[in-house]
Amino acid sequence: MTTETDSLHTVAGASDATAVDDSFHVFDTTLRDGAQREGINLTVADKLTIARHLDDFGVGFIEGGWPGANPRDTEFFARAKQEIRFRNAQLVAFGSTRRAGATAAEDPQVKALLDSGAPVITLVAKSHDRHVELALRTTLDENIAMVRDTVAHLREQGRRVFVDCEHFFDGYRANPEYAKAVVRAAAEAGADVVILCDTNGGMLPAQIQAVVSTVLADTGARLGIHAQDDTGCAVANTLAAVDAGATHVQCTANGYGERVGNANLFPVVAALELKYGKRVLPDGALKEMTRISHAIAEVVNLTPSTHQPYVGVSAFAHKAGLHASAIKVDPDLYQHIDPERVGNTMRMLVSDMAGRASIELKGKELGVDLGGDRALISRVVERVKERELKGYTYEAADASFELLLRAEVEGRARRYFRTESWRAIVEDRPDGTHANEATVKLWAKGERIVATAEGNGPVNALDLAMRAGLERIHPQLAKLELVDYKVRILEGKHGTQSTTRVLITTTDGEGEWATVGVGENVIAASWQALEDAYTYGLLRAGVDPAE
Amino acid sequence: MTTETDSLHTVAGASDATAVDDSFHVFDTTLRDGAQREGINLTVADKLTIARHLDDFGVGFIEGGWPGANPRDTEFFARAKQEIRFRNAQLVAFGSTRRAGATAAEDPQVKALLDSGAPVITLVAKSHDRHVELALRTTLDENIAMVRDTVAHLREQGRRVFVDCEHFFDGYRANPEYAKAVVRAAAEAGADVVILCDTNGGMLPAQIQAVVSTVLADTGARLGIHAQDDTGCAVANTLAAVDAGATHVQCTANGYGERVGNANLFPVVAALELKYGKRVLPDGALKEMTRISHAIAEVVNLTPSTHQPYVGVSAFAHKAGLHASAIKVDPDLYQHIDPERVGNTMRMLVSDMAGRASIELKGKELGVDLGGDRALISRVVERVKERELKGYTYEAADASFELLLRAEVEGRARRYFRTESWRAIVEDRPDGTHANEATVKLWAKGERIVATAEGNGPVNALDLAMRAGLERIHPQLAKLELVDYKVRILEGKHGTQSTTRVLITTTDGEGEWATVGVGENVIAASWQALEDAYTYGLLRAGVDPAE
Repeated sequence: MTTETDSLHTVAGASDATAVDDSFHVFDTTLRDGAQREGINLTVADKLTIARHLDDFGVGFIEGGWPGANPRDTEFFARAKQEIRFRNAQLVAFGSTRRAGATAAEDPQVKALLDSGAPVITLVAKSHDRHVELALRTTLDENIAMVRDTVAHLREQGRRVFVDCEHFFDGYRANPEYAKAVVRAAAEAGADVVILCDTNGGMLPAQIQAVVSTVLADTGARLGIHAQDDTGCAVANTLAAVDAGATHVQCTANGYGERVGNANLFPVVAALELKYGKRVLPDGALKEMTRISHAIAEVVNLTPSTHQPYVGVSAFAHKAGLHASAIKVDPDLYQHIDPERVGNTMRMLVSDMAGRASIELKGKELGVDLGGDRALISRVVERVKERELKGYTYEAADASFELLLRAEVEGRARRYFRTESWRAIVEDRPDGTHANEATVKLWAKGERIVATAEGNGPVNALDLAMRAGLERIHPQLAKLELVDYKVRILEGKHGTQSTTRVLITTTDGEGEWATVGVGENVIAASWQALEDAYTYGLLRAGVDPAE
Repeated sequence: MTTETDSLHTVAGASDATAVDDSFHVFDTTLRDGAQREGINLTVADKLTIARHLDDFGVGFIEGGWPGANPRDTEFFARAKQEIRFRNAQLVAFGSTRRAGATAAEDPQVKALLDSGAPVITLVAKSHDRHVELALRTTLDENIAMVRDTVAHLREQGRRVFVDCEHFFDGYRANPEYAKAVVRAAAEAGADVVILCDTNGGMLPAQIQAVVSTVLADTGARLGIHAQDDTGCAVANTLAAVDAGATHVQCTANGYGERVGNANLFPVVAALELKYGKRVLPDGALKEMTRISHAIAEVVNLTPSTHQPYVGVSAFAHKAGLHASAIKVDPDLYQHIDPERVGNTMRMLVSDMAGRASIELKGKELGVDLGGDRALISRVVERVKERELKGYTYEAADASFELLLRAEVEGRARRYFRTESWRAIVEDRPDGTHANEATVKLWAKGERIVATAEGNGPVNALDLAMRAGLERIHPQLAKLELVDYKVRILEGKHGTQSTTRVLITTTDGEGEWATVGVGENVIAASWQALEDAYTYGLLRAGVDPAE
């Protein structure tokens, strides 16, 4: 056990295994159940990106969606198979037991699960007698036959099968014998794990622990837990099930999910690794947790929760004066773990000490030596504070930060071109088509350049006009490509008069970099981010900054 | 016990009392510990407003701050005494045990606690041996003398005293005998309740339960719990302490507090009342919970969390088609409590995961009767799926959905005006200023309208031009105001050539509605969302749709 392992806590089945194996499953369902969160609407490209992040984090299983239920999920499985080489995770298709009164082999929904090519299939099954009768509208016996038949069919086709018992805990309360009969039927038919789901999320940890213990003793099936957060206890409920002997936990990144959400993957795995001393992720993965949590939030376009356990920017931030003095003596007096273990950092609020230290670290990370120059570092801290007050964010825009840093270190901003003016016109024509035209007036190497281009939007038109104008002088720009573009409106309560922040990601085929622009309108903010993106691209290419 | 009370759950000391009495304390520390949250900065007026809300909600104790430690808290106690007539709560002053080597009677910090006039005083005391030595820099014996002396002195002055044992759980792990000695000293000197604090927030429920049980058995003191949320388990930790016999829970509204936050008052009291069947609030108070949670968020100027258990706007929102069909049969199949019990409501979200049942329910919610017309409902489902595939999202744009629905029901779209064309120009001038100009060409009531306006961005200019053109014909538009504007770029991997989705929230001073627009560029998408926003505003105002 590691030194942080908690000796007070006794965990049934806890192991000191040194490698992640099949004996304990970290099962992620961000792409399926997480996508049920209000406000999340994932494209196939989003799903592929999230799957890559989850695989990097080292979860064992990624539930990708319900192939056949909608074209997006079907496409996701087809593309994931071709485009992602998973290092840690297995892809899981989610679907339902066959319909009543037919065979699994004939059921088109079941066939779509097989067609997805996923090596693992999670079947959702009813285990609450009232749901069988009122929602499924079949008999209790037929429901059990549906479970047996579907599991057996998928096993015959060579797939690994997990069975999600929907509404298990409510069902157990209403009719414990029937609920257990469903678990037994699934296990006997060949399901490797039967997952007890608190679908309505109304349970508390003591209840979960009691039911999981009893079901484990009475059925002998390998059990998993799927908890929803409606009582604010999903993490604790998941751990309570593990305490009772469950060896498979279903979670979502950042706790995304229907209604309040699902058990949050990050505090669950952090508790298992750091508090239980249980190895559930590959070496070094936990250190990536903060980064991956924020990256997934960006993909789903939700602001990362500042107060999320372990990974929030406030999770290790100290404000109380009472604490600050003691922290100077020994930081471990006032934090439950070393934040570096989860890739986070301690922050002292209202103190530029922390600011200077992190700027210096960041400079080191970017290869810009600040040589411990206190006056210079303070200038950079002030500049960052002043810009962030205006809405800039450098956490997500490394390249813009490096340009700012170099400008302070070198005494002047890098400049490969100068903007005289630009203009973008968007026109909606009576026939419903749009024209987007931009004109830019720039100076580079002493030459005045005027260029015009059309695009499929005003920013695209500006981008193309800028390239058209500069490429002759800076041919290195030809290989730059914009790969991501994000807009966030700050100060949401001022309608279209808000401040706009644009983040642009650019690639030169070898690396990617992000730049930021802020302005009273989206076009002006985009232009700033484009200027930084091109400037940084030329800096990377080693071009001499003489104008 | 109420019918929703959970028979599976056995609670030590649970009572069926019909009135709130002193046997169980709901103790709120939003104004003291909650104010430590990053981003919260309360004025005295804010504190008075929050105290009124908490008293309305029916908590037994309101910890108002540390009188003497800062002028704001001193003023709060002075004004609260004069300005608030508490109906349910007692005001609590927070402070520290006396300093080492002096008497409590002489200690100015202790005197300030008495001067506050608060009938109840919470004293924070060290109970972790290392903290006594390293942070307090005194001996273990002197620390115990400080606890005894300060409690006894305050009791002599006629105050009720609670003692917060800081870092109790970490201290208990390091030196259980010393930690218990502090509890005994406090109780023997006259403290009514000794609160075990998980100050660093690193504990899990099983640990809390084990320690509280042991300390209760070994000391016989009345115990309370103060949990921080660093493991994401603060609510469960609080309930675990109650299971072990604690009869005093310290919480904050919305879980505000340092780092990740404190145990959230709302899910804690909801679990006690609805799951344990324990009366901890006055009659009818729980029904005010959602309103009070949001009101307090407004006062501290934080957006209410949409995904907070019980009280978030998403807490009873259903998206999955799988669920919607069963909800039509019996809503209790898919919710753990009736949302009305906590003053919240069920909402159906419309998305491409929705089936016919959720469209029908949504129609009912919007007052559009679909009369069980299967063909019509199927048409709406198809239309939603087809539009969402293009990037529209209706779960966040109720008004656009209603327009779509009505168009299908009524056979044609509502139209108060028709767009012939529009044009937006954004110009960056050599002096660095921007010009944003829009021209719109519209038809309304058979009249062709051409209007031009300048704005601080292209969308703002279009909005102003549209109003300028239409207000004469539709004066109802004058009171419409855009209050929120969100942009999301879909298919993030295609740079500036991505599809853009815009969500606009509009108000007429009475209600708010959200509309969506999608297009290959941000201006075109914004125009669509503006058109829907104005059309819906006129529909709401009861304007006849004849063009």
